[in-house]
Amino acid sequence: MLNFPKHLLEGYGRYLGKGFVRYKETHERLAVYGQTPEVMVISCCDSRVAPEGIFSVGPGELFVVRNVANLVPPYEDTEGQHGTSAAIEFAVKGLKVKHIVIMGHGQCGGVKAFRENANAPMVTGQFIGRWIKLLEPAAISMACMPIDKADDPQLAMEYAGIRQSLKNLLTFPFIEEAVQGAALQLHGAWFDVGSAELRVMNPESQRFEKAGPDAPGIAE
Amino acid sequence: MLNFPKHLLEGYGRYLGKGFVRYKETHERLAVYGQTPEVMVISCCDSRVAPEGIFSVGPGELFVVRNVANLVPPYEDTEGQHGTSAAIEFAVKGLKVKHIVIMGHGQCGGVKAFRENANAPMVTGQFIGRWIKLLEPAAISMACMPIDKADDPQLAMEYAGIRQSLKNLLTFPFIEEAVQGAALQLHGAWFDVGSAELRVMNPESQRFEKAGPDAPGIAE
Amino acid sequence: MLNFPKHLLEGYGRYLGKGFVRYKETHERLAVYGQTPEVMVISCCDSRVAPEGIFSVGPGELFVVRNVANLVPPYEDTEGQHGTSAAIEFAVKGLKVKHIVIMGHGQCGGVKAFRENANAPMVTGQFIGRWIKLLEPAAISMACMPIDKADDPQLAMEYAGIRQSLKNLLTFPFIEEAVQGAALQLHGAWFDVGSAELRVMNPESQRFEKAGPDAPGIAE
Amino acid sequence: MLNFPKHLLEGYGRYLGKGFVRYKETHERLAVYGQTPEVMVISCCDSRVAPEGIFSVGPGELFVVRNVANLVPPYEDTEGQHGTSAAIEFAVKGLKVKHIVIMGHGQCGGVKAFRENANAPMVTGQFIGRWIKLLEPAAISMACMPIDKADDPQLAMEYAGIRQSLKNLLTFPFIEEAVQGAALQLHGAWFDVGSAELRVMNPESQRFEKAGPDAPGIAE
Repeated sequence: MLNFPKHLLEGYGRYLGKGFVRYKETHERLAVYGQTPEVMVISCCDSRVAPEGIFSVGPGELFVVRNVANLVPPYEDTEGQHGTSAAIEFAVKGLKVKHIVIMGHGQCGGVKAFRENANAPMVTGQFIGRWIKLLEPAAISMACMPIDKADDPQLAMEYAGIRQSLKNLLTFPFIEEAVQGAALQLHGAWFDVGSAELRVMNPESQRFEKAGPDAPGIAE
Repeated sequence: MLNFPKHLLEGYGRYLGKGFVRYKETHERLAVYGQTPEVMVISCCDSRVAPEGIFSVGPGELFVVRNVANLVPPYEDTEGQHGTSAAIEFAVKGLKVKHIVIMGHGQCGGVKAFRENANAPMVTGQFIGRWIKLLEPAAISMACMPIDKADDPQLAMEYAGIRQSLKNLLTFPFIEEAVQGAALQLHGAWFDVGSAELRVMNPESQRFEKAGPDAPGIAE
Repeated sequence: MLNFPKHLLEGYGRYLGKGFVRYKETHERLAVYGQTPEVMVISCCDSRVAPEGIFSVGPGELFVVRNVANLVPPYEDTEGQHGTSAAIEFAVKGLKVKHIVIMGHGQCGGVKAFRENANAPMVTGQFIGRWIKLLEPAAISMACMPIDKADDPQLAMEYAGIRQSLKNLLTFPFIEEAVQGAALQLHGAWFDVGSAELRVMNPESQRFEKAGPDAPGIAE
Repeated sequence: MLNFPKHLLEGYGRYLGKGFVRYKETHERLAVYGQTPEVMVISCCDSRVAPEGIFSVGPGELFVVRNVANLVPPYEDTEGQHGTSAAIEFAVKGLKVKHIVIMGHGQCGGVKAFRENANAPMVTGQFIGRWIKLLEPAAISMACMPIDKADDPQLAMEYAGIRQSLKNLLTFPFIEEAVQGAALQLHGAWFDVGSAELRVMNPESQRFEKAGPDAPGIAE
């Protein structure tokens, strides 16, 4: 007897009856021609921030990495298995995506663990503790050159983490080259779980601004 | 001027007008009480296989890792940043999820790269090449103890990768303990892009069987 | 008192009375001029597959390595004592052999141990377990690009091991050079213990075909 | 077109017509019940000293390692692939052989290379040079406590190598235990290519004595 979660199979049944009917040709085309997404999103594992839902996209549109706290490690040419870097390489060199979006969110548990860990190292698990060390340079930048108001350090760290991941992306030679050649654009975004407010980082000011179809200054 | 992809912002606009209306209370509850997903899904970055879509779930239901080829590395108590292991630790020790689903899919580019790499090492990128080495034990198991028909080696390797990730999950002491204590169940699933057929691994035979709300033997 | 096995000394007595009489001049010539074998055979330690018997050759014809599972390691320019590589170097650079035959066989205990080990690591002994890890790339190739029918995984792995050893031979610079210059040919062969059937690998299809003096397509 | 050496296939044809006819039942029995050799022989790759010929044995009788200069490395519990140690482990722990014969021979090229190398290091190939370093303790023993007459240093070194390999065998815990328990006996032997004279090491005097079915003191 299969013990697969029943509600997932029921949800799958609903997808067959509705989503798949809508996307049937898309599915068939994607199976025949393969995927050609133009956007890579690096977001958090958090169950509340699935990028496909927030951006209302169907199959084939977003190439998605999800890891704890939507982090990009810096380029590192060593042996070892770098999952996020492998996905980035696949997206940029293989799929030639035109955009990479680092998508953070409010109440991020990974960011929260990092902040608590700074006070009491190793209260977090061993793997989590090591992974979120990737936020250290973000914290240092934030302490040295604060961009955001300091009244919400959790939010400020979420923003700082997004900025750091954008910086780290540029340490990959093939990304730096693609960005220079205007073949690739990098973006920061942040999503509020409670209000569903989306904010996008202004690349010049590095500040996060409310975004939406009607927000001012959005690219046509 | 923000140059954020316009179609994503338009999609976000649609979400605000429809999905968010539907899930408004869920969003607010999730913001106040935090996330309590019961299921973790480890699936591929591939743009065609977003688990939230396939299982028709809303915010708060799935804690999702997405990496190339939906791989779980074996437990390894070394320094270094293990993104997938960190997410697993967060889900099992922090969120106490009740299910982990390894969700593979057809035409997986990561699996394909691994198979091509076996032929001509290093044709794939450096990060991809190293990451998909995680499939090596899967290939060895598959060669030594074939479970699937050999007429589709790509499919057989996709299945073998899922089985290997399930094995690797059990190398984490806290997972082994949770599974022993019946607090956690591990599942394998596979999705066909073209037909949207879902197959679930039978834990006894280790074979993948067509699944759905009406398929026989599904747990009530 | 010598306790040397009596039946071996009796067999030696028979050799003196028969084989040596036949090969006396050969022995003397080989003692005076040294050995000049044209063929190196790398076969298994298995007591059932002595290459001199199968090919009915007398003294001086085959330079023979016998190790568990007839394996050739890849070229590796590190310190350490590589017995098989030393023998290969001796044969190719010293004796200038014209052919190297990798000679596998059915029911190979080393291959069997590797297949069982994939299931339950370390059930085999420590030295055996490490030695047969040399079969790992063979298993990976076999899983990624199956050449043989999967209905006999033991046989398929025996074949895959022979193919891998042939590949590994070409990683030795002096072999690659000799093969390029047509001074050396590499061959795969497989022997069935029960029926004494000999199969030879077709270098183009990489498949093993029944061989013999009357088999089609044998080089004159 | 197969380019397998024609004379080997012709020899195989002779084997089918003669040897296999003689050993047909043996082959079938060995295929059904597996091998159960009572003797392991570690001899040289040299084309002139195939142990099956010298001892007139058929299939299934000798488990044979053949490496350059019939060397046994000392027991070494490190990672790495020790081919000869793996074969010894297979024979003693797996097959439970009752005898191990280290079988040296005259005009051994490996011993000769070691002796030349002592004068002009690295004249020999890199793999050979490292492999025959295993003879160093033999040379030291021989220099410090000469057992044999010094008028033939090549022969004396051949003998010393056999003695050293016998010593090295006893460094394997499972061999030491089997020898203590009288489950296993170790023997040294040496074969002269030109005259086919066989000499066996007297375990007490450590000297090599002419052996044969009629030689005095042979175990009944």
